[in-house]
Amino acid sequence: MKKKSAILLSALLAIGIAGTAAAQSAEDAIEYRQSVFQTVKWNMGPMTAMAKGEKPFDKDAFLKHATRVEQLSHMPLEGFTPDSDLGETDAKPEVWSKRAEFEKRMKNWQEQAAKLAQVAKAGDERAIKAQFGELGKSCKACHDDFRVKR
Amino acid sequence: MKKKSAILLSALLAIGIAGTAAAQSAEDAIEYRQSVFQTVKWNMGPMTAMAKGEKPFDKDAFLKHATRVEQLSHMPLEGFTPDSDLGETDAKPEVWSKRAEFEKRMKNWQEQAAKLAQVAKAGDERAIKAQFGELGKSCKACHDDFRVKR
Repeated sequence: MKKKSAILLSALLAIGIAGTAAAQSAEDAIEYRQSVFQTVKWNMGPMTAMAKGEKPFDKDAFLKHATRVEQLSHMPLEGFTPDSDLGETDAKPEVWSKRAEFEKRMKNWQEQAAKLAQVAKAGDERAIKAQFGELGKSCKACHDDFRVKR
Repeated sequence: MKKKSAILLSALLAIGIAGTAAAQSAEDAIEYRQSVFQTVKWNMGPMTAMAKGEKPFDKDAFLKHATRVEQLSHMPLEGFTPDSDLGETDAKPEVWSKRAEFEKRMKNWQEQAAKLAQVAKAGDERAIKAQFGELGKSCKACHDDFRVKR
Protein backbone atom coordinates (compact mmCIF):
# COMPACT_ATOMS: atom_id res chain seq x y z
CA MET A 1 0.00 0.00 0.00
CA LYS A 2 2.85 2.35 0.83
CA LYS A 3 4.30 1.94 -2.61
CA LYS A 4 0.93 2.59 -4.23
CA SER A 5 0.46 5.78 -2.24
CA ALA A 6 3.91 6.95 -3.22
CA ILE A 7 3.11 6.41 -6.89
CA LEU A 8 -0.18 8.24 -6.55
CA LEU A 9 1.47 11.11 -4.75
CA SER A 10 4.22 11.46 -7.33
CA ALA A 11 1.64 11.44 -10.11
CA LEU A 12 -0.30 14.20 -8.37
CA LEU A 13 2.82 16.22 -7.68
CA ALA A 14 3.75 15.90 -11.31
CA ILE A 15 0.52 17.48 -12.44
CA GLY A 16 0.89 20.28 -9.94
CA ILE A 17 -2.18 19.46 -7.95
CA ALA A 18 -0.76 18.10 -4.71
CA GLY A 19 0.61 21.46 -3.66
CA THR A 20 -2.81 23.04 -3.70
CA ALA A 21 -4.53 20.21 -1.88
CA ALA A 22 -4.05 21.44 1.66
CA ALA A 23 -5.78 24.78 1.41
CA GLN A 24 -7.96 26.70 -0.97
CA SER A 25 -7.39 30.40 -0.42
CA ALA A 26 -9.82 33.28 -0.93
CA GLU A 27 -7.95 34.00 -4.15
CA ASP A 28 -8.49 30.42 -5.32
CA ALA A 29 -12.19 30.72 -4.51
CA ILE A 30 -12.53 33.93 -6.53
CA GLU A 31 -10.65 32.42 -9.46
CA TYR A 32 -12.77 29.30 -9.22
CA ARG A 33 -16.16 31.00 -9.30
CA GLN A 34 -15.06 33.33 -12.08
CA SER A 35 -13.90 30.30 -14.07
CA VAL A 36 -17.28 28.64 -13.66
CA PHE A 37 -19.10 31.77 -14.86
CA GLN A 38 -16.66 32.11 -17.76
CA THR A 39 -17.50 28.55 -18.76
CA VAL A 40 -21.20 29.34 -18.47
CA LYS A 41 -20.72 32.39 -20.68
CA TRP A 42 -19.04 30.32 -23.40
CA ASN A 43 -22.03 27.98 -23.42
CA MET A 44 -24.56 30.83 -23.39
CA GLY A 45 -22.96 32.26 -26.55
CA PRO A 46 -24.24 29.78 -29.16
CA MET A 47 -27.65 29.55 -27.47
CA THR A 48 -27.95 33.34 -27.56
CA ALA A 49 -26.98 33.39 -31.22
CA MET A 50 -29.67 30.79 -31.96
CA ALA A 51 -32.27 32.60 -29.86
CA LYS A 52 -31.54 35.82 -31.75
CA GLY A 53 -31.66 34.07 -35.10
CA GLU A 54 -28.02 34.88 -35.83
CA LYS A 55 -27.33 31.18 -36.09
CA PRO A 56 -29.67 28.51 -37.44
CA PHE A 57 -31.42 26.61 -34.65
CA ASP A 58 -29.62 23.33 -33.96
CA LYS A 59 -31.51 21.11 -31.53
CA ASP A 60 -28.53 18.94 -30.60
CA ALA A 61 -26.17 21.85 -30.06
CA PHE A 62 -28.77 23.64 -27.96
CA LEU A 63 -29.27 20.54 -25.81
CA LYS A 64 -25.53 20.16 -25.31
CA HIS A 65 -25.05 23.74 -24.14
CA ALA A 66 -28.21 23.75 -22.02
CA THR A 67 -27.10 20.55 -20.28
CA ARG A 68 -23.70 22.04 -19.55
CA VAL A 69 -25.18 25.23 -18.14
CA GLU A 70 -27.38 23.13 -15.88
CA GLN A 71 -24.36 21.16 -14.66
CA LEU A 72 -22.35 24.33 -14.14
CA SER A 73 -25.19 26.09 -12.31
CA HIS A 74 -24.54 23.92 -9.26
CA MET A 75 -20.87 24.80 -9.08
CA PRO A 76 -20.26 28.49 -8.32
CA LEU A 77 -21.99 28.80 -4.93
CA GLU A 78 -19.22 27.01 -3.04
CA GLY A 79 -16.77 29.59 -4.41
CA PHE A 80 -18.46 32.41 -2.49
CA THR A 81 -16.57 31.50 0.68
CA PRO A 82 -16.80 33.69 3.80
CA ASP A 83 -13.39 35.29 3.36
CA SER A 84 -13.56 35.90 -0.40
CA ASP A 85 -15.51 39.18 -0.36
CA LEU A 86 -12.42 41.30 -1.00
CA GLY A 87 -9.86 41.09 -3.79
CA GLU A 88 -10.26 40.93 -7.55
CA THR A 89 -13.97 40.29 -7.54
CA ASP A 90 -17.12 41.80 -9.00
CA ALA A 91 -19.21 40.29 -6.23
CA LYS A 92 -20.95 42.96 -4.18
CA PRO A 93 -20.79 42.88 -0.34
CA GLU A 94 -24.50 41.99 -0.51
CA VAL A 95 -23.52 38.43 -1.51
CA TRP A 96 -22.45 38.03 2.10
CA SER A 97 -24.70 40.55 3.90
CA LYS A 98 -27.91 39.38 2.19
CA ARG A 99 -26.95 35.76 1.92
CA ALA A 100 -30.42 34.22 2.01
CA GLU A 101 -31.61 36.40 -0.87
CA PHE A 102 -28.42 35.68 -2.84
CA GLU A 103 -28.84 31.95 -2.43
CA LYS A 104 -32.51 32.20 -3.35
CA ARG A 105 -31.60 33.83 -6.67
CA MET A 106 -28.84 31.33 -7.25
CA LYS A 107 -31.37 28.56 -6.68
CA ASN A 108 -33.80 30.18 -9.10
CA TRP A 109 -31.05 30.25 -11.72
CA GLN A 110 -30.38 26.55 -11.14
CA GLU A 111 -34.08 25.80 -11.55
CA GLN A 112 -34.38 27.79 -14.76
CA ALA A 113 -31.28 26.07 -16.13
CA ALA A 114 -32.71 22.66 -15.21
CA LYS A 115 -35.97 23.55 -16.95
CA LEU A 116 -34.10 24.65 -20.05
CA ALA A 117 -32.20 21.36 -20.22
CA GLN A 118 -35.50 19.53 -19.86
CA VAL A 119 -37.25 21.57 -22.56
CA ALA A 120 -34.21 21.24 -24.82
CA LYS A 121 -34.48 17.48 -24.53
CA ALA A 122 -38.11 17.63 -25.68
CA GLY A 123 -36.93 19.67 -28.68
CA ASP A 124 -39.70 22.21 -29.34
CA GLU A 125 -37.95 25.30 -30.70
CA ARG A 126 -40.52 27.83 -29.51
CA ALA A 127 -40.62 26.39 -25.97
CA ILE A 128 -36.83 26.26 -25.87
CA LYS A 129 -36.47 29.89 -26.86
CA ALA A 130 -39.10 30.97 -24.34
CA GLN A 131 -37.35 29.10 -21.53
CA PHE A 132 -34.01 30.51 -22.64
CA GLY A 133 -35.53 33.94 -22.02
CA GLU A 134 -36.48 32.84 -18.50
CA LEU A 135 -32.95 31.64 -17.91
CA GLY A 136 -31.62 35.02 -19.06
CA LYS A 137 -33.92 36.77 -16.61
CA SER A 138 -32.65 34.60 -13.76
CA CYS A 139 -29.05 35.59 -14.63
CA LYS A 140 -30.02 39.24 -14.70
CA ALA A 141 -31.94 39.06 -11.41
CA CYS A 142 -28.77 38.10 -9.61
CA HIS A 143 -26.39 40.35 -11.55
CA ASP A 144 -28.56 43.41 -10.90
CA ASP A 145 -28.21 43.26 -7.14
CA PHE A 146 -25.18 41.14 -6.45
CA ARG A 147 -22.61 42.01 -9.10
CA VAL A 148 -20.76 45.29 -9.60
CA LYS A 149 -21.86 47.01 -12.80
CA ARG A 150 -19.18 47.18 -15.45
CA MET B 1 -43.98 37.31 -30.74
CA LYS B 2 -42.10 40.44 -31.72
CA LYS B 3 -42.61 41.89 -28.28
CA LYS B 4 -41.42 38.69 -26.63
CA SER B 5 -38.25 38.67 -28.72
CA ALA B 6 -37.56 42.26 -27.79
CA ILE B 7 -37.89 41.45 -24.11
CA LEU B 8 -35.60 38.45 -24.47
CA LEU B 9 -33.05 40.48 -26.36
CA SER B 10 -33.05 43.27 -23.82
CA ALA B 11 -32.62 40.76 -21.01
CA LEU B 12 -29.64 39.24 -22.79
CA LEU B 13 -28.13 42.61 -23.56
CA ALA B 14 -28.51 43.55 -19.91
CA ILE B 15 -26.45 40.61 -18.79
CA GLY B 16 -23.76 41.35 -21.32
CA ILE B 17 -24.14 38.19 -23.28
CA ALA B 18 -25.72 39.35 -26.51
CA GLY B 19 -22.61 41.18 -27.64
CA THR B 20 -20.56 38.02 -27.58
CA ALA B 21 -23.10 35.86 -29.32
CA ALA B 22 -21.99 36.41 -32.87
CA ALA B 23 -18.42 35.20 -32.66
CA GLN B 24 -16.17 33.38 -30.27
CA SER B 25 -12.61 34.47 -30.90
CA ALA B 26 -9.40 32.49 -30.40
CA GLU B 27 -8.90 34.50 -27.22
CA ASP B 28 -12.35 33.47 -25.99
CA ALA B 29 -11.54 29.83 -26.74
CA ILE B 30 -8.29 30.00 -24.77
CA GLU B 31 -10.00 31.69 -21.84
CA TYR B 32 -12.79 29.12 -22.00
CA ARG B 33 -10.62 26.01 -21.90
CA GLN B 34 -8.42 27.51 -19.16
CA SER B 35 -11.57 28.24 -17.15
CA VAL B 36 -12.72 24.66 -17.49
CA PHE B 37 -9.35 23.33 -16.32
CA GLN B 38 -9.31 25.83 -13.45
CA THR B 39 -12.71 24.51 -12.39
CA VAL B 40 -11.39 20.95 -12.64
CA LYS B 41 -8.41 21.90 -10.48
CA TRP B 42 -10.66 23.32 -7.75
CA ASN B 43 -12.56 20.03 -7.66
CA MET B 44 -9.37 17.94 -7.69
CA GLY B 45 -8.13 19.77 -4.57
CA PRO B 46 -10.36 18.19 -1.90
CA MET B 47 -10.12 14.76 -3.55
CA THR B 48 -6.32 15.01 -3.51
CA ALA B 49 -6.37 16.03 0.14
CA MET B 50 -8.55 13.02 0.95
CA ALA B 51 -6.40 10.68 -1.13
CA LYS B 52 -3.30 11.87 0.70
CA GLY B 53 -4.99 11.56 4.08
CA GLU B 54 -4.70 15.29 4.76
CA LYS B 55 -8.46 15.46 5.05
CA PRO B 56 -10.74 12.76 6.46
CA PHE B 57 -12.40 10.72 3.73
CA ASP B 58 -15.92 12.01 3.07
CA LYS B 59 -17.86 9.79 0.70
CA ASP B 60 -20.46 12.40 -0.24
CA ALA B 61 -17.93 15.16 -0.85
CA PHE B 62 -15.81 12.79 -2.95
CA LEU B 63 -18.82 11.83 -5.04
CA LYS B 64 -19.75 15.46 -5.59
CA HIS B 65 -16.30 16.43 -6.81
CA ALA B 66 -15.86 13.27 -8.90
CA THR B 67 -19.21 13.88 -10.60
CA ARG B 68 -18.23 17.45 -11.40
CA VAL B 69 -14.89 16.43 -12.84
CA GLU B 70 -16.68 13.90 -15.03
CA GLN B 71 -19.09 16.58 -16.27
CA LEU B 72 -16.25 19.02 -16.87
CA SER B 73 -14.12 16.46 -18.68
CA HIS B 74 -16.40 16.73 -21.70
CA MET B 75 -16.07 20.49 -21.96
CA PRO B 76 -12.52 21.61 -22.77
CA LEU B 77 -12.01 19.89 -26.13
CA GLU B 78 -14.20 22.34 -28.05
CA GLY B 79 -11.98 25.15 -26.75
CA PHE B 80 -8.98 23.85 -28.70
CA THR B 81 -10.20 25.55 -31.86
CA PRO B 82 -8.04 25.57 -35.02
CA ASP B 83 -6.95 29.19 -34.63
CA SER B 84 -6.26 29.17 -30.89
CA ASP B 85 -2.75 27.72 -30.96
CA LEU B 86 -1.08 31.10 -30.41
CA GLY B 87 -1.63 33.64 -27.66
CA GLU B 88 -1.67 33.29 -23.87
CA THR B 89 -1.77 29.53 -23.84
CA ASP B 90 0.22 26.66 -22.35
CA ALA B 91 -1.02 24.33 -25.05
CA LYS B 92 1.85 22.95 -27.13
CA PRO B 93 1.70 23.04 -30.95
CA GLU B 94 1.35 19.23 -30.73
CA VAL B 95 -2.30 19.71 -29.68
CA TRP B 96 -2.89 20.65 -33.30
CA SER B 97 -0.10 18.77 -35.11
CA LYS B 98 -0.76 15.44 -33.34
CA ARG B 99 -4.48 15.88 -33.02
CA ALA B 100 -5.50 12.21 -33.05
CA GLU B 101 -3.14 11.40 -30.18
CA PHE B 102 -4.29 14.48 -28.25
CA GLU B 103 -7.93 13.53 -28.60
CA LYS B 104 -7.13 9.94 -27.61
CA ARG B 105 -5.61 11.12 -24.34
CA MET B 106 -8.49 13.51 -23.75
CA LYS B 107 -10.86 10.59 -24.25
CA ASN B 108 -8.86 8.46 -21.83
CA TRP B 109 -9.16 11.24 -19.24
CA GLN B 110 -12.92 11.36 -19.79
CA GLU B 111 -13.13 7.59 -19.32
CA GLN B 112 -11.07 7.63 -16.12
CA ALA B 113 -13.21 10.48 -14.78
CA ALA B 114 -16.39 8.56 -15.61
CA LYS B 115 -15.00 5.48 -13.85
CA LEU B 116 -14.14 7.55 -10.79
CA ALA B 117 -17.67 8.95 -10.60
CA GLN B 118 -19.00 5.40 -10.88
CA VAL B 119 -16.70 4.02 -8.20
CA ALA B 120 -17.44 7.02 -5.97
CA LYS B 121 -21.13 6.20 -6.19
CA ALA B 122 -20.43 2.66 -5.00
CA GLY B 123 -18.55 4.16 -2.07
CA ASP B 124 -15.62 1.80 -1.39
CA GLU B 125 -12.79 3.99 -0.11
CA ARG B 126 -9.93 1.81 -1.29
CA ALA B 127 -11.39 1.45 -4.80
CA ILE B 128 -12.07 5.17 -4.95
CA LYS B 129 -8.51 6.07 -4.02
CA ALA B 130 -7.10 3.57 -6.52
CA GLN B 131 -9.24 5.00 -9.33
CA PHE B 132 -8.32 8.53 -8.30
CA GLY B 133 -4.71 7.52 -8.94
CA GLU B 134 -5.71 6.35 -12.43
CA LEU B 135 -7.41 9.68 -13.06
CA GLY B 136 -4.24 11.50 -11.98
CA LYS B 137 -2.21 9.43 -14.42
CA SER B 138 -4.58 10.33 -17.25
CA CYS B 139 -4.12 14.03 -16.46
CA LYS B 140 -0.37 13.61 -16.42
CA ALA B 141 -0.30 11.63 -19.68
CA CYS B 142 -1.74 14.60 -21.51
CA HIS B 143 0.16 17.32 -19.63
CA ASP B 144 3.50 15.60 -20.30
CA ASP B 145 3.26 15.85 -24.06
CA PHE B 146 0.69 18.54 -24.76
CA ARG B 147 1.22 21.24 -22.17
CA VAL B 148 4.19 23.57 -21.74
CA LYS B 149 6.11 22.76 -18.55
CA ARG B 150 5.90 25.50 -15.94
